[in-house]
Amino acid sequence: MRYVSSAPTGGSTTTKSPLASGKWVRLEKTTYVDAAGTTRIWETAKRTTRRSTTTADGVGIIAVLKRTLHKDCMVLVKQFRPPLGCHTLEFPAGLIDDNETAEAAALRELKEETGYKGEVVGITPVTCLDPGLSNCTTYIVTVNINGDDPDNLHPSQKLEFVEVILLPLDEFQKKIDELLQREDVVMDSKVYIYAMGITQAFAKPKELPVLKQ
Amino acid sequence: MRYVSSAPTGGSTTTKSPLASGKWVRLEKTTYVDAAGTTRIWETAKRTTRRSTTTADGVGIIAVLKRTLHKDCMVLVKQFRPPLGCHTLEFPAGLIDDNETAEAAALRELKEETGYKGEVVGITPVTCLDPGLSNCTTYIVTVNINGDDPDNLHPSQKLEFVEVILLPLDEFQKKIDELLQREDVVMDSKVYIYAMGITQAFAKPKELPVLKQ
Repeated sequence: MRYVSSAPTGGSTTTKSPLASGKWVRLEKTTYVDAAGTTRIWETAKRTTRRSTTTADGVGIIAVLKRTLHKDCMVLVKQFRPPLGCHTLEFPAGLIDDNETAEAAALRELKEETGYKGEVVGITPVTCLDPGLSNCTTYIVTVNINGDDPDNLHPSQKLEFVEVILLPLDEFQKKIDELLQREDVVMDSKVYIYAMGITQAFAKPKELPVLKQ
Repeated sequence: MRYVSSAPTGGSTTTKSPLASGKWVRLEKTTYVDAAGTTRIWETAKRTTRRSTTTADGVGIIAVLKRTLHKDCMVLVKQFRPPLGCHTLEFPAGLIDDNETAEAAALRELKEETGYKGEVVGITPVTCLDPGLSNCTTYIVTVNINGDDPDNLHPSQKLEFVEVILLPLDEFQKKIDELLQREDVVMDSKVYIYAMGITQAFAKPKELPVLKQ
């Protein structure tokens, strides 16, 4: 189940010299040796905020709101993002605090951004977000929210300027596309790809390959 | 299906002043006005390479290899990524060239990185990759590869140092986890989340919510 190219894929980083450092982000010139032994330069963005106690910058939270007599809903957040100069629709997410576990960070960020009290049901290994540009990494934490819990009947979030958007899980892709039609927002790639994964699985669970002539 | 916070989510960007500019990446101080009218500062990483003819920096490619008498396979690439200083497992991806459509960029990058000739079957709207850090955006292009096509029997990729890895679609999550156990690689969040979406859909297609007391 694997096809290996003839070229080796080795490589190693040698030096990192800062081009500029802001309060939260720094731009770095990364010198590395590729698998052929050639020394090359890469430009890398890094957060200055990564804690020594964790291997990831932050957490992304796939939160499902479960309520009696309601469809299960994905919990998303809409907010203005200065880097893009527009609003985005994302999974709740945030940076991991000092001496905080990823699970604790996920429940804290979920509470702050949406008001919901959740329960962690899964966590991924460390994953990268844009590995051609930055060293930024995240855990994806799966959280269930018991919407029948009195604490979750009237969620009140702590963060200003964040709008909570609930979309039914069984029509996630369709509802995302409808939302993009009527609102001027940019969707985070992870949200869209999660919906594509669900659609892929539902649409063609057992279909045999149909090949073109 | 929507719960709107009491706070407005407005915001607007005012000025952007460079902190530093490399050849490929620049670090920018973004001044913006939040929804309460307060002027604030954000630090943003931007690629210097975005073309004026497109609204996205690049493409990510969800490519499925379809062959008679084989399971459908996801096509992934393993490569050394200087920003992380280690190897990653990602969807094939790349930047969009001048005057190139996203679809053409996807087929070109797929061919370069994996040797496969594909056919575009879908494309998402523009999506963002790490909107708290950068303005970087991508289209996700879905591509089918006819593995029975003579051109695809012995794929030869053009890029050095990229290893092509095929994982069966019907066990994608399981095979990813096995690979992470035996290899020292960081998985791209989009790959992992696509697998999670498929698993989510297969595992509990019709399950009723079971709530805790």
